[in-house]
Amino acid sequence: MAYEAPVEDMAFALKSMARLDRLSGRAFPEFDMELIEPVLEEAGKLASEVLAPLNQPGDEQGAQLTGDGVVAPHGFAEAYRQFVEGGWMGLAAPVEWGGQGLPKVLANAVLELIHGANMSFGLCPMLSLGAIEALVAHGAREQQEKYLPKLITGEWTGTMNLTEPQAGSDVGALKSKAVPNGDGSYAISGQKIYITWGDHDMAENIIHLVLARLPQAPAGSRGISLFVVPKVLVKDDGTLGERNKVQCIGLEKKIGIHASPTCVMEYDGATGWLVGEENKGLACMFTMMNSARLNVGLEGVGVGEAAYQTAYAYAQERKQGKADGVDGPAPILHHADIRRTLTTMRANVMAARSICYACGVAADLAETCEDESEREAARLREELLTPIAKAWATDVGVDVASLGVQIHGGMGFMNETLAAQLYRDARIAPIYEGTNGIQAIDLVGRKLSMAGGRAMEDMIVEVQATARTARETNDPQLVQIADRLAAAADALKEATTWMAEAMKADKEKGLSGATAYLKLAGDVIGGHFLTMGALAGRQESGPLRGRMTALAGFFAETSLAEAPGRVSGITRGGDSFLAESDALFGLA
Amino acid sequence: MAYEAPVEDMAFALKSMARLDRLSGRAFPEFDMELIEPVLEEAGKLASEVLAPLNQPGDEQGAQLTGDGVVAPHGFAEAYRQFVEGGWMGLAAPVEWGGQGLPKVLANAVLELIHGANMSFGLCPMLSLGAIEALVAHGAREQQEKYLPKLITGEWTGTMNLTEPQAGSDVGALKSKAVPNGDGSYAISGQKIYITWGDHDMAENIIHLVLARLPQAPAGSRGISLFVVPKVLVKDDGTLGERNKVQCIGLEKKIGIHASPTCVMEYDGATGWLVGEENKGLACMFTMMNSARLNVGLEGVGVGEAAYQTAYAYAQERKQGKADGVDGPAPILHHADIRRTLTTMRANVMAARSICYACGVAADLAETCEDESEREAARLREELLTPIAKAWATDVGVDVASLGVQIHGGMGFMNETLAAQLYRDARIAPIYEGTNGIQAIDLVGRKLSMAGGRAMEDMIVEVQATARTARETNDPQLVQIADRLAAAADALKEATTWMAEAMKADKEKGLSGATAYLKLAGDVIGGHFLTMGALAGRQESGPLRGRMTALAGFFAETSLAEAPGRVSGITRGGDSFLAESDALFGLA
Repeated sequence: MAYEAPVEDMAFALKSMARLDRLSGRAFPEFDMELIEPVLEEAGKLASEVLAPLNQPGDEQGAQLTGDGVVAPHGFAEAYRQFVEGGWMGLAAPVEWGGQGLPKVLANAVLELIHGANMSFGLCPMLSLGAIEALVAHGAREQQEKYLPKLITGEWTGTMNLTEPQAGSDVGALKSKAVPNGDGSYAISGQKIYITWGDHDMAENIIHLVLARLPQAPAGSRGISLFVVPKVLVKDDGTLGERNKVQCIGLEKKIGIHASPTCVMEYDGATGWLVGEENKGLACMFTMMNSARLNVGLEGVGVGEAAYQTAYAYAQERKQGKADGVDGPAPILHHADIRRTLTTMRANVMAARSICYACGVAADLAETCEDESEREAARLREELLTPIAKAWATDVGVDVASLGVQIHGGMGFMNETLAAQLYRDARIAPIYEGTNGIQAIDLVGRKLSMAGGRAMEDMIVEVQATARTARETNDPQLVQIADRLAAAADALKEATTWMAEAMKADKEKGLSGATAYLKLAGDVIGGHFLTMGALAGRQESGPLRGRMTALAGFFAETSLAEAPGRVSGITRGGDSFLAESDALFGLA
Repeated sequence: MAYEAPVEDMAFALKSMARLDRLSGRAFPEFDMELIEPVLEEAGKLASEVLAPLNQPGDEQGAQLTGDGVVAPHGFAEAYRQFVEGGWMGLAAPVEWGGQGLPKVLANAVLELIHGANMSFGLCPMLSLGAIEALVAHGAREQQEKYLPKLITGEWTGTMNLTEPQAGSDVGALKSKAVPNGDGSYAISGQKIYITWGDHDMAENIIHLVLARLPQAPAGSRGISLFVVPKVLVKDDGTLGERNKVQCIGLEKKIGIHASPTCVMEYDGATGWLVGEENKGLACMFTMMNSARLNVGLEGVGVGEAAYQTAYAYAQERKQGKADGVDGPAPILHHADIRRTLTTMRANVMAARSICYACGVAADLAETCEDESEREAARLREELLTPIAKAWATDVGVDVASLGVQIHGGMGFMNETLAAQLYRDARIAPIYEGTNGIQAIDLVGRKLSMAGGRAMEDMIVEVQATARTARETNDPQLVQIADRLAAAADALKEATTWMAEAMKADKEKGLSGATAYLKLAGDVIGGHFLTMGALAGRQESGPLRGRMTALAGFFAETSLAEAPGRVSGITRGGDSFLAESDALFGLA
């Protein structure tokens, strides 16, 4: 049950849905549209030949905490060495620091492949990427010189240290302390939990980015600063010096991603250096989090794709019951119900992929457009799509993984089945990097009000334009899709108007519909990209054409057709439980 | 995080939704409406005080296969002894064989409690119930005398042995053999897999009901016979004799229900006796399966209730962020998004519970109504609701367990959290006793065509009547619910008409919408019962009144409001993937 890189679908989504071509001619000197397939194919080899075979053994063995720190499962260190040698870490990093300067969305796509093959493994470079971004954006020059080259080759890895037992979604409640040492460095003390790949034996150094409070810092989120704290101190000549006073003191036992160590980290006067300004740590952390959120969305896509592939393979092999034209027991793929399930999986994965890539393209445009208004529009799009990419795609990951289990029948409940592992692994993605509830609150609370509501307005205008284009083909299949899409866009518009108003007039009521609103937005925007795919598919020959029409058609008659009926769940769903919070929850 | 029996909700669902009062005056000499609460409370004590504390330890330790057979986790044997002493096994069994002759729906409700407290444990009596039913319905008098009394006290337990590696959903493909010994007994040989509680140390004997083929039996499902095969042979005087030639040769490693041994059973010429007629084993097995399917539905309810309770408790304790009127960090229950999630969980659990109980009441009526047309109507209702109870309620179980994990945030992904265990445990229920896909096919393929389509027709008429009653209250909240319910009933009617036609004219197309049809039917029927609950709640004082209105109101604005938009997913969802099965799946 090998994972195969879905290069055709990915390249198609990048080009025809996310419109990666808009990056041509921007500040990516090395980029060329012809690069897309070769990059994906090369990364796909690493994913399917090196990382996928370690996925189930890694799950079974798990990461181990020894007297000597954390040890990754067998084979992971060697696989990581190959990842480093391939230069994958620096794909989209600045050329100045040794990166290849390609669009970040390509790095996002490569990470999707890695997550699909081995989500536990993928988390390590994902966290490094965040550290790289934070240092590129906010690090002092000497910090950049000291850490970026090795992070970008991948020789060193990076982590994000936010959460403390009392400070999860509410990062502002954290208590870790940073006391000036008088030499420009700080002594960092405190305990951090849920630190992904917080320690391991795959790299000689780990660069921790840590949120802590300076003495006399204001309370809450305005008193948080960001520090860089290497596991091993780095001398001025770049060689490694003393071991810093930070260690992993425990590993969590989790439902899934067993090969990825989730560490309790103890900082005991560890030496660190301030990144960016004092008390502006949260803003710096958001730099890492935006990109991390998109990459977590792509975990949903990667795991969803893997779940699809393994379910499809199983449905071809497993024989039960009879089918027309088949002698003896027929592969269950012949049963219409199984094909419906597989189509549900594939359509949702493709929709999630397209939302994530579109978010990635917008992020690249926001950094490289020369025209200010284009840049601003791209930034708005990136900001709008980030919570949707994170939450909608990770919910798809969980749902699709569950459908994958279902196709396997009893086998799907057995630990030895990849489907079972994917069901367990996928479940973390809606939780970390800001729970999906937090994403929904971000969407309705911050993103809808940006630039006077323009971000979602512009998006809906584009959805409507796609529906018009589809209708103008006069192709009956596309006209049918167009009708569903147009009605869904109207529903989203109605819900958006209501939500923008509610968030001003009665915030609690608005928030009571936030998650349902995000779901609707994801459905409509996902349907928009699938429709673009069906339109572009008309230029293709071979199965791609039929596939894209079928996926868009299926999604239109299911998720899009349900969209108008979802508005009341947003606008009126909260009425009952807000009014009856006493009877329901004993809340006065 | 103790499980507490939700006696108020359960009794309300039994009385005001499932209308248990219709069983008064039937052939249940011992039954009295006043018994409901005391029975649930007493069973609730066993559940919360004895079984719930063993749930997480049992998950961690798991059942073990030793040289001496399977050993249940610590404490299970003693808990089972208390279960037997309480007389719980015989609650609804015939008085003739030592049972208490109460309505079966009460036993269903008790099993819900047991599953909620400890699903692994609950599977053992659930399987015994199936064995009891099969022997009551199809056993020869001497078989009944030999096995029923001890099964009904619970001193012995029972199993169902259907599945073989090549014969899962397609039971007809099984190969186990039964060769006559010449003395009226048979030598049973073959391997059975996924046998729940197939061996254990909690009872001195285990009565296996086993499907196998007689020599020269016809191929397929028409050549299957049912046999009773005790683990230890029972002498004519009722004492135990020799060990039979059947043993557990392996335990499956599963995602969840670790405390419940899932056995590979080896029958090596084991002595068995034919139950019912030759080659009619499948029909006999269906007796067990109907009741087992309903009880599996109640696993979804029980686990969903447990997930709700643990999430609610966590939301009261866990403090993150601020809320109006709360000093310092507020319990996350104050966040509207959390309350929405909890309301979603509770409304769906209550809807699932009511569908299951209504199915149970119908089953009891089908056995005890004196009037033939009433009996027939009840049988149709039972047949109609069985696949919906099984599939809709177990999907709810998985979804609600997943929402419970989400409310726990990072903690929900940790193995030590009950929420995590429930997420893993819940996942089997949509798979066994006929996958939910099989249930959907049963619903559209067999149940819709019974008695010329009357079963669903009558159901829809009742839904419409409930909507009318709610509208006639002139209470604005109920009128709003009534409008949603009426529109949803219309949607179900439209889909039903289409489906009945499609199953005649183009079966594959019908089957392509089966799962979506079952989901719609469950939503509408669940909404019908919740509306009945809101109506009956008007007679109540205290929180129950507000709670029932709120749950019905929320469900109406979400699931019911979406119903009309779901019709096209049934009627047109299949078009795309059936037409493009080549492009999508390489199927010509």
